Amino acid sequence: MGRPGRNILKENLKNIIEEYTVDFVIANGENAAGGNGITKKVAEELFETGVNFLTMGNHVWDNKDIFTFIDNEERIIRPLNYPPGTPGKGSKIIEIKNNLKIGIINISGRTYMQNLDCPFRTCIEEIEKISSITNIIIVDFHAEATSEKQAMGWYLDGKVSAVIGTHTHVQTADERILPGGTAYITDVGMTGAFNSILGVEVEGVIKKFITQLPARFDVAKGIAQLNSVLIEIEENTGRATSINRINLLK
Amino acid sequence: MGRPGRNILKENLKNIIEEYTVDFVIANGENAAGGNGITKKVAEELFETGVNFLTMGNHVWDNKDIFTFIDNEERIIRPLNYPPGTPGKGSKIIEIKNNLKIGIINISGRTYMQNLDCPFRTCIEEIEKISSITNIIIVDFHAEATSEKQAMGWYLDGKVSAVIGTHTHVQTADERILPGGTAYITDVGMTGAFNSILGVEVEGVIKKFITQLPARFDVAKGIAQLNSVLIEIEENTGRATSINRINLLK
Amino acid sequence: MGRPGRNILKENLKNIIEEYTVDFVIANGENAAGGNGITKKVAEELFETGVNFLTMGNHVWDNKDIFTFIDNEERIIRPLNYPPGTPGKGSKIIEIKNNLKIGIINISGRTYMQNLDCPFRTCIEEIEKISSITNIIIVDFHAEATSEKQAMGWYLDGKVSAVIGTHTHVQTADERILPGGTAYITDVGMTGAFNSILGVEVEGVIKKFITQLPARFDVAKGIAQLNSVLIEIEENTGRATSINRINLLK
Amino acid sequence: MGRPGRNILKENLKNIIEEYTVDFVIANGENAAGGNGITKKVAEELFETGVNFLTMGNHVWDNKDIFTFIDNEERIIRPLNYPPGTPGKGSKIIEIKNNLKIGIINISGRTYMQNLDCPFRTCIEEIEKISSITNIIIVDFHAEATSEKQAMGWYLDGKVSAVIGTHTHVQTADERILPGGTAYITDVGMTGAFNSILGVEVEGVIKKFITQLPARFDVAKGIAQLNSVLIEIEENTGRATSINRINLLK
Ligand SMILES: [Fe+2]
Ligand SMILES: [Fe+2]
Ligand SMILES: [Fe+2]
Ligand SMILES: [Fe+2]
Ligand SMILES: [Fe+2]
Ligand SMILES: [Fe+2]
Ligand SMILES: [Fe+2]
Ligand SMILES: [Fe+2]
Repeated sequence: MGRPGRNILKENLKNIIEEYTVDFVIANGENAAGGNGITKKVAEELFETGVNFLTMGNHVWDNKDIFTFIDNEERIIRPLNYPPGTPGKGSKIIEIKNNLKIGIINISGRTYMQNLDCPFRTCIEEIEKISSITNIIIVDFHAEATSEKQAMGWYLDGKVSAVIGTHTHVQTADERILPGGTAYITDVGMTGAFNSILGVEVEGVIKKFITQLPARFDVAKGIAQLNSVLIEIEENTGRATSINRINLLK
Repeated sequence: MGRPGRNILKENLKNIIEEYTVDFVIANGENAAGGNGITKKVAEELFETGVNFLTMGNHVWDNKDIFTFIDNEERIIRPLNYPPGTPGKGSKIIEIKNNLKIGIINISGRTYMQNLDCPFRTCIEEIEKISSITNIIIVDFHAEATSEKQAMGWYLDGKVSAVIGTHTHVQTADERILPGGTAYITDVGMTGAFNSILGVEVEGVIKKFITQLPARFDVAKGIAQLNSVLIEIEENTGRATSINRINLLK
Repeated sequence: MGRPGRNILKENLKNIIEEYTVDFVIANGENAAGGNGITKKVAEELFETGVNFLTMGNHVWDNKDIFTFIDNEERIIRPLNYPPGTPGKGSKIIEIKNNLKIGIINISGRTYMQNLDCPFRTCIEEIEKISSITNIIIVDFHAEATSEKQAMGWYLDGKVSAVIGTHTHVQTADERILPGGTAYITDVGMTGAFNSILGVEVEGVIKKFITQLPARFDVAKGIAQLNSVLIEIEENTGRATSINRINLLK
Repeated sequence: MGRPGRNILKENLKNIIEEYTVDFVIANGENAAGGNGITKKVAEELFETGVNFLTMGNHVWDNKDIFTFIDNEERIIRPLNYPPGTPGKGSKIIEIKNNLKIGIINISGRTYMQNLDCPFRTCIEEIEKISSITNIIIVDFHAEATSEKQAMGWYLDGKVSAVIGTHTHVQTADERILPGGTAYITDVGMTGAFNSILGVEVEGVIKKFITQLPARFDVAKGIAQLNSVLIEIEENTGRATSINRINLLK
């Protein structure tokens, strides 16, 4: 979320990668550029911090710069369930190391969100395609309602390695391995300013709720939090064996 | 959430109270009776497990039995921001022990929720009244959007002992003491069936999302989780000194 | 809407058909049975009044009786943009008289409505199929937002004979022939009790808005209104040449 | 709605006023300036066309110019049910001619709209205040849902001269005098470009619905429509004796 989020990654992500011998880092980048969308410059800044891949969400188009590079950038996806013809892709398969491929899917919920195609149907069809190439599959389900997110976790249990929720900017404490071997968390949280409302300055948000008048939403400053989950996956089966929350406050 | 939630409380709450020397237990009871509202019988069952006080939420009126007893039951409140004339009360002051009083406020969010009175304005007015009697005040903010919940936390920081979010049925990992001394968590989570979607059987909820047809929502069975937070508060100042998540899985 | 709506049709529809030499009568029947859904008995009652065909909407499944007959009844459709596998069909082609066929499509909006498939994409695909058989096509667009309804009218202008809005229960005064030859009205209105709120007793609805408590919604009684539009279409081209509102109050 | 709306008023409103001997003209001006809000200049342009008074709606703050003049302009109101402390006023009493005063109230719905104070409670309290000064009272209820609008009509029947709905930009055909003497219409419609979607260029709106991508909404050009209602009110009782739709297409 904005510069505080990018800075804490810059200073800490490589240490985390080393400490936990992380193979692949996926981040949600929909609010990376000043809280609204992403630019080519910000995406590259994030890749330099150690992030390997970026997923997006409902704010994907907020910064128009994305239309200039999303079709040429192999390391970014936007929600899969936008209609056919939408710029960019909703899934990618990346070769991590020799013969080890990972499929990543970004999908958006519909409850209290945009009117997109059915996330359940769209996602299961995409998984069928990807499964013939790799059984390591990570789904970023960008959604608001906890019911829709848990439903997706259970629906995909045993079919993907992990269903990781994003969008609420608040990390949940319900990480678990579902019975079929899928790692799940309702929301992975936010990397950005700690003394903030979802990364935004407190004052403007409170004013908006109370007055219902237009208000400026500026990215908050000061100490930052890093929210993430570390998932261990069996290379041959694609089953997750652990999911742990890794957080920093600096 | 339904019988599994009540059973895990029955078997474990008194141990928890003893182990942590808990003075006062508040539970959200809006889904206590078969997942929908509450009855006099279920309320009394909960009080016997060690719960001292019940708050409610958007499901408060789901079981019509509540209209028969809410006005005579000192240990239940419903969201304060229902219009004037609504049965029940939105806040109560309880004497815990000699000369130690606690104020409890239940308030509902509006984002993606019902059209009630402004929760910020209503709550701050109630706090002003209660503050003249006690400065130990707990707010259960029953709301969907993380932004509205965090906004309430910051808005009331320094004015109440704790702002505890409910409604999403998923515990968040963002518990903290805000700078002014208010304990805060976006959602305390749910006490109910562990292999479930918010306490409800998985199958029906998935079917609903996929088919958009009417579906039965039954309370799920099997092992249960207990989600809670333990808050320490200074008696004289009302400031919170710690907030910790206490969870069980049985 | 309920019995008052059925009665005013019973007593007047055949006269209207005769007076205006109407070839084919389409009614929206989603609230025909006591305000909620439809039953086989009520559907047959409507067909006897002179209605030739029934479309539905978001209340299609409210009365479970529909699951027992929708797949065998050639004269009822439900919104096309429910997911594949949904009982019933979203379009039908009916032979009105020798070699004169009419295609009828029922489609649901998404703004402030259910999360269904894209109505624009789904509808245009269906029109392509039907067009090879007949160019007389009537679309019942069951939607809330005036913007979505007008957008559908303009989107389908020149591709269908008429886009007729339903769902708000209030007739609009914007009937027109769009430049491409498509008859359009944002909402055809409701046939049901006149002294009512959308066909429902006034008192319960007001109580609901003011108290936000659960309230009973009973079908209102007393004098009834009949709302309809009469559309003239060129047999060979499928172009509409006129659209007129025909209303009764008895 | 934008320049086409202002132009058709400029060229025709004074003729209409003369032809029907209209005493007082109220217009909703929330989209007067380029489709978004209003400016001092545009407000004055409208007053010169013959408009006597302007009501607003959810777009009231879209053009920030309003904050500079709303507190000094006696002929503009914004929805009454914004929280206390909001700039501007939600009702005004205007002296039309010697000893003839009219009260005007602007109020916003909540269903599918902003989270404001209860429109029913707020409005009835304001009516009580105004009634002691005049019993000619006009309510502009700016709301989306037909149920909420009809509920307000019935709720205020006999207490005000007219409840006139705005916001959907589509005129409804349900104008009537309710039993208690209140003139009612669900929506008075829009004055703006005829070949448009709610006054906006067709292409951008369709693109938005289909692609779900950001789209430009420009005010449409070409021939314009004028939508209005003419209400006759008894001076001494405040009862409405007629309501008629007056529309132009030029
Ligand atoms: Fe998001
Ligand atoms: Fe975000
Ligand atoms: Fe609940
Ligand atoms: Fe709830
Ligand atoms: Fe309906
Ligand atoms: Fe409907
Ligand atoms: Fe408007
Ligand atoms: Fe509006």
